[in-house]
Amino acid sequence: MAYDIDSLTDVAFALFAQRGFDATSMDEIARAAGITKASIYHHVSGKEALLQHGLDRALTALFAVLDEPASCEGAPRARLEAIVTRVALVTMAMLPEVSVLFRVRGNSRTERAAMERRRTFDAAVTGLVQAAQRERSVRADIDPALATRLIFGMSNSVAEWYRPNGRMGAQEIASAIGRIVFEGSGSFDAGGRTEVQ
Amino acid sequence: MAYDIDSLTDVAFALFAQRGFDATSMDEIARAAGITKASIYHHVSGKEALLQHGLDRALTALFAVLDEPASCEGAPRARLEAIVTRVALVTMAMLPEVSVLFRVRGNSRTERAAMERRRTFDAAVTGLVQAAQRERSVRADIDPALATRLIFGMSNSVAEWYRPNGRMGAQEIASAIGRIVFEGSGSFDAGGRTEVQ
Repeated sequence: MAYDIDSLTDVAFALFAQRGFDATSMDEIARAAGITKASIYHHVSGKEALLQHGLDRALTALFAVLDEPASCEGAPRARLEAIVTRVALVTMAMLPEVSVLFRVRGNSRTERAAMERRRTFDAAVTGLVQAAQRERSVRADIDPALATRLIFGMSNSVAEWYRPNGRMGAQEIASAIGRIVFEGSGSFDAGGRTEVQ
Repeated sequence: MAYDIDSLTDVAFALFAQRGFDATSMDEIARAAGITKASIYHHVSGKEALLQHGLDRALTALFAVLDEPASCEGAPRARLEAIVTRVALVTMAMLPEVSVLFRVRGNSRTERAAMERRRTFDAAVTGLVQAAQRERSVRADIDPALATRLIFGMSNSVAEWYRPNGRMGAQEIASAIGRIVFEGSGSFDAGGRTEVQ
């Protein structure tokens, strides 16, 4: 099979996601790809370059969400809902890349650069939470940076257990996240009142 | 300094939490403890035994939450709220043990046993979500096992960034989780209506 950096990144990230970046050697990547280590080095300078390529993919996909019409147009609350749902869907669609991104701890320049871009992303969303709080379309009694972290905490956690051919579909999961985050689990109160949507 | 298995587990889990179980050697644990590796082996059979001891601590603390009066008595929804808030507080109070527990992937018997106990814990909470759904005190349009995973996904994510002496207190964070999960971020709607508590 003829590889390029993209297909080698696929092979590498399947291993990184499963057993961790540090625990994966170039030998194992070569074995999984069914080619020699020398042939891999023909395409990429090493494991770090593969990491960078895959993290770039994940971050590019996440930032692309912010540029979608539903994320840019309309009221802050609606934009926020669109972003949260779409980020969950991107997480599930790019599971290996995004789950490796979520586990990055800053052990190298590549990892630190990825963390920096994640912070920029979070800051953009925090700004939107603030705007929604100002217009009282989301609750203002929670620090906006904390709310952003907790919301993405729920959404990101899906990467830990979601399987593409599992019992639950990506759309169902993303929709459940949106409902819990914006309407709450308790949107029927003890008296059986139904929330107005 | 005189060590026992408990204080050695503290030293080991500070390292496990920071750089991962696999990446931490007994040599590093000995160095961090300021004693020889031979003295460690006087107390414990090895790294796996330290892992087991710390994971036991975390799981014992989490299961203890289920036995607290607020978790056992009263309506399902109130019990659920108590559990979610207390689990978040235990997560922050036992940060090294709980964050290592959350990252366990089943690479050894110890890890698989811990994962099994986590599943038992989740199943108990899922049962409570079902009971609350039956009495319509939490929304019934989300699969109860999915709701449980998402709720703990948010709560567990705190282990990734919480620092004991940080800007935000554990109580504030746990309370924010309870509010988002049960009331939703959007508990003021666009018209400015205030949710009745």
